Amino acid sequence: MYDRLKGFRDFYPDEMSARRALIDSLEDTARRYGFREVGTPALERTEMYVDKSGEEIVEELYTFTDKGGRELALAPELTPTVARMVVAKQQELAKPIKWFSTRPFWRYEEPQQGRFREFYQTNVDIFGSAEPEADAEILAYAADAMTDLGLSADEFEFRVSHRDILGGLLEAVDSAVDVRAAIRAVDKSAKIETAEYHDLLHEAGLTYDEAETVDDLLDTDDLSALTDFAGTDRVANAVENLQAVLAAAEDYGVREYTTLSLETARGLDYYTGVVFECFDSTGEISRAVFGGGRYDDLIESFGGQPTPAVGVAPGLAPLSLLLQRADVWPEESLSTDYYVLQVGDTRDVAAATARDLRARGHVVETDVSDRSFGAQLEYADAINAETTVIVGERDLANGELTIKDMVSGDQVAVPVEDFPGDREAPRYEDFA
Amino acid sequence: MYDRLKGFRDFYPDEMSARRALIDSLEDTARRYGFREVGTPALERTEMYVDKSGEEIVEELYTFTDKGGRELALAPELTPTVARMVVAKQQELAKPIKWFSTRPFWRYEEPQQGRFREFYQTNVDIFGSAEPEADAEILAYAADAMTDLGLSADEFEFRVSHRDILGGLLEAVDSAVDVRAAIRAVDKSAKIETAEYHDLLHEAGLTYDEAETVDDLLDTDDLSALTDFAGTDRVANAVENLQAVLAAAEDYGVREYTTLSLETARGLDYYTGVVFECFDSTGEISRAVFGGGRYDDLIESFGGQPTPAVGVAPGLAPLSLLLQRADVWPEESLSTDYYVLQVGDTRDVAAATARDLRARGHVVETDVSDRSFGAQLEYADAINAETTVIVGERDLANGELTIKDMVSGDQVAVPVEDFPGDREAPRYEDFA
Repeated sequence: MYDRLKGFRDFYPDEMSARRALIDSLEDTARRYGFREVGTPALERTEMYVDKSGEEIVEELYTFTDKGGRELALAPELTPTVARMVVAKQQELAKPIKWFSTRPFWRYEEPQQGRFREFYQTNVDIFGSAEPEADAEILAYAADAMTDLGLSADEFEFRVSHRDILGGLLEAVDSAVDVRAAIRAVDKSAKIETAEYHDLLHEAGLTYDEAETVDDLLDTDDLSALTDFAGTDRVANAVENLQAVLAAAEDYGVREYTTLSLETARGLDYYTGVVFECFDSTGEISRAVFGGGRYDDLIESFGGQPTPAVGVAPGLAPLSLLLQRADVWPEESLSTDYYVLQVGDTRDVAAATARDLRARGHVVETDVSDRSFGAQLEYADAINAETTVIVGERDLANGELTIKDMVSGDQVAVPVEDFPGDREAPRYEDFA
Repeated sequence: MYDRLKGFRDFYPDEMSARRALIDSLEDTARRYGFREVGTPALERTEMYVDKSGEEIVEELYTFTDKGGRELALAPELTPTVARMVVAKQQELAKPIKWFSTRPFWRYEEPQQGRFREFYQTNVDIFGSAEPEADAEILAYAADAMTDLGLSADEFEFRVSHRDILGGLLEAVDSAVDVRAAIRAVDKSAKIETAEYHDLLHEAGLTYDEAETVDDLLDTDDLSALTDFAGTDRVANAVENLQAVLAAAEDYGVREYTTLSLETARGLDYYTGVVFECFDSTGEISRAVFGGGRYDDLIESFGGQPTPAVGVAPGLAPLSLLLQRADVWPEESLSTDYYVLQVGDTRDVAAATARDLRARGHVVETDVSDRSFGAQLEYADAINAETTVIVGERDLANGELTIKDMVSGDQVAVPVEDFPGDREAPRYEDFA
């Protein structure tokens, strides 16, 4: 007997049906915003991640050398791949480019609640617009995706920040700071002790007093005070941009789901502007459910023309936790419209009946195991068949079938030629 | 600039929309037969394939050692994974177990037309029935999947064979033959020269005269002659089973798509009974489009209770070739229901209009790039918007929007409060 790998999951039909409902909903929301599906490879050259995604992700890559000597990695995230795709066809693609896809990614890290070595995300990105409307459309997509799943404004919030406010403030505090390292420290601040956080800021080049100052600055909602503190165009422009994004989010009807939260930094190095993370408002799930943000420099760093970009990537596993916590996780069960039950030598009529019902779009099962009446009825029950069509030798001799409602147990005899007849979805009630 | 890996593909939205239509159709047909979706990992332990899938596949695996020292492989096919899953929950799962899934697989082989290193299949399997109805249901699913895609009986055929007829005949010809090696030779016979094929049979233990005899035997449609030639229960039972499967296929309405073809062997070692391959009837595509068959011993060899199984796995790339050849490949294009065009400071009304239309399920885009009237109209055209809703400052001052039919170019002014109003899909005609 072979075992499943640690951090990998098998999804059996009950659970998969709920996951499919979740994926369909996330994708349907994206389609309605005019995002278009793309398909992307599982493997990329390792150097693409080594060059671009920052240390943290590279340590966790599944990497290997293929039989042709190529250094490969299983994709740990989508962004570098879609950036590569934009560069490859930058002349042909009409902007804004609006793409989505749902697929697995892989990171070698310790599995924990809601986090696996193989994990699925729906990535949603806009390339080619630097306008605040693009950031706001990503926020609006993400908010609609959540409410379309049955969540309300009480149950989640998007904590919104801006990389240039963070970076500009850090530089204003100490011009010698390693901004990337300091931002990674801020990103971790909620998950670690204050002392450890301040140690990380210190390693990034700040004194412990300056670390305290950063703490105080990031704790404010008063953006104009930050502009004043920094006194730089960089922070002033970033504050203005963040305010414009929030104003657009207001017009887009999703301002109510957002909270200003400058401690929100996102771990990846390539973010440049607005960043945000989705949190469980009740605090029961302490980690971010998912996040997103603007990454205006990535396409150019991949050798493309300067192309601003912004995106979000709901992860199925953490999102599932939130939906279960909020009691709106889709039902885990199988549904079947018809079971066609064969008694005696009736396979031809049973098969034709099943065929007719399937042609009308219904989910139909029939016996493929040469089972008894009782065993078939039990199976029909196990798959939650709504209606069982009993095709019995004796009934057939009278030119009849029996239609059985599986909830009430009521049944009725029907002439063979009347079923399904011209009915789209014939049920017991149509003949009783 | 980073390059895509050889044998891997990026799917941009036009092509992806056609692929999505293909996948949706393959899966919808499976759902109507009562197959249930499962989700499976990309990685498995290498030994699972080394032990079970035969030499041919192992040579082509993407394998590596993970950071925990595990020998892993990217899945080259689904069957071993679902067999593992059946064994893991064999007590709980109600039989027959009917599963489907669509996902990528990976093999390190030379890319050629319709064959890639990363390739997608929709796998459809039944576990727990040894009856001919199960084989026939797989054939019926496969035939319906093809006709649901727009193909007709003139355009494809399922060449059906039986592993035990093949094996039994080979043993009857020469009891010392290496049956597996000889079956692999038969599987290759259509793709190689006769002399090379006979060399392979010779390597499997036959004389060249016996190889000629095998050729003659496999060329017949007269199954009873084969039973007589072999004179063994094995062949007699296999012939009876194959005839029972074809009779069930007749009842299931799909006999017309099948052809008896004993040269069809399938390459993988684990097949045990009926096997079949789908071919382009015109012969333009010479290789098999996809295949399937019965593998009754695999679950037990994985440490499970004896569990008969049969399945099929249409591959998207070869199937795409067939659909393109038959001119029924889904259209490669984007569709958009509405573009909401902003002129001047009208973002709030435009956003509310887009929101209302999306809430009705429509695909709606609006400006996120601060573009001119002309640039927006051009973009609306590029995304094939059916209707453009023009939200202009001057119109709005009169309490009006303009609804423009993008095909005719006709437009009409409409009071803001009437659009969309209580209409589900308001168009120009509703107001003209």
